[in-house]
Amino acid sequence: MPREITAYSNPLIKWARDLRDKRHRKQSRQFLAEGLRILTEARETGRLPTLLFYAKPSAGHPLVRDLIKAVEASEGEAIETTPDILSKLSGKDNPQAVVGVFEELGVTLDELDRNASGIWLVAERLRDPGNLGTILRTGDAVGAGGLILVGECVDPFSVEAVRASMGALFTVPIVKTEWQPFLDWLRQGPGQLVGLSLDTDSDYRAARYAAPTFLLTGNEAHGMPAEYAAACDTLVKIPMLGKADSLNAAVATAVMAYEVLAQQRG
Amino acid sequence: MPREITAYSNPLIKWARDLRDKRHRKQSRQFLAEGLRILTEARETGRLPTLLFYAKPSAGHPLVRDLIKAVEASEGEAIETTPDILSKLSGKDNPQAVVGVFEELGVTLDELDRNASGIWLVAERLRDPGNLGTILRTGDAVGAGGLILVGECVDPFSVEAVRASMGALFTVPIVKTEWQPFLDWLRQGPGQLVGLSLDTDSDYRAARYAAPTFLLTGNEAHGMPAEYAAACDTLVKIPMLGKADSLNAAVATAVMAYEVLAQQRG
Repeated sequence: MPREITAYSNPLIKWARDLRDKRHRKQSRQFLAEGLRILTEARETGRLPTLLFYAKPSAGHPLVRDLIKAVEASEGEAIETTPDILSKLSGKDNPQAVVGVFEELGVTLDELDRNASGIWLVAERLRDPGNLGTILRTGDAVGAGGLILVGECVDPFSVEAVRASMGALFTVPIVKTEWQPFLDWLRQGPGQLVGLSLDTDSDYRAARYAAPTFLLTGNEAHGMPAEYAAACDTLVKIPMLGKADSLNAAVATAVMAYEVLAQQRG
Repeated sequence: MPREITAYSNPLIKWARDLRDKRHRKQSRQFLAEGLRILTEARETGRLPTLLFYAKPSAGHPLVRDLIKAVEASEGEAIETTPDILSKLSGKDNPQAVVGVFEELGVTLDELDRNASGIWLVAERLRDPGNLGTILRTGDAVGAGGLILVGECVDPFSVEAVRASMGALFTVPIVKTEWQPFLDWLRQGPGQLVGLSLDTDSDYRAARYAAPTFLLTGNEAHGMPAEYAAACDTLVKIPMLGKADSLNAAVATAVMAYEVLAQQRG
């Protein structure tokens, strides 16, 4: 039977609430994900929360019932609470029906099978959690093998990134690494490194993307360092017809990824 | 000479600060834009702020000096203030060098020349300011004729939307309208209405996009109403290979817009 917690001062609530803080996530290696849609998607990929919080009014919802059962059948715990506490856990005025605490995901480069997909996403020094989550969501949609985060990127397990990913962080493998280890690993096998750049005349539609293609997206404000661009097999640009000289990083990644997908599907 | 304001209690500061609030924007028909990059871009398109706030330490920056001169040469006023007050105006810990107050933009359907561009973006009930700004930024990049907002969309002049647009709200005409007036206007001339939909087998790369093409993107959570989809000349889908059934709205719009652009450029 789920236990009930209705006091915000309860230590477990406070502990879960603190997972909105990066340091606390790093120590505990757990993170928050919210919403029936995302938690159900997680479950379908075999991932269950270690703690599941749900609001009493939602207890009768069939998907909530299924989640409670699944969590209790595993090592997890289901906790009935109030909409107000859920709202505090999620930091939103209109709380989702459920909030889950999950163990952090993440794989190493050596665990990746580069031939498992024709498209891999690589982002360096990505700063915006919304962009990171959106790139994961796109990665899921194009069937990317994974998202490789190079250098000081924003935390993919922040509440904002998880939210923007719409559950894709459960389906797209995430690697955190640095530039040199990534490059060393890349050159141990097949794989074309394609960089988005302003300093090239090669249109992204004219280049050819053999599988596996690794798409490198640079920092939102500064793009990628010259050294990284020099290490790319191909640099391509997306046409910019207006006043601005760049697209949003998640948008640019998606435009590229769908071109690669279209070519590889013939 | 610019006047100096160093007290947060100054009525002008309070008035400008309140432009972060939608009701106040609606009454005054003015909005805030921040950052040297965006304000310089605005200036290059012939748009100057009615009020320009800059922090004393930035007064020597050549672009800030140019802005001050231009604002004072027009009907506007330049105001020297503190980084702390700038931070309060922009709502960010690390304030930009400048914050400007601009008169609201916006045109009507009848002011649009549909043959001025091959691509037009149409969004209905768009809820997220980041998505709206990002769509404007993409619209600038593909040379879209404008962004037509149908129904209850988020305010394009909110601080978050302006920020995400990276200045594109000064270069891409914005129309706010309702569905029926839009459809009536559309059918008075040439123009293909293309809707993104999950309920079609037509791949977006297989369809043909003659100029002018109007790309309709539906609400983030619910997509577009069946009635709107039925009014489209063409419904297309973007392939989704993963678990999720949709892309981020700004990403989907960009993937579509770049396909239209590629076709129209031959």
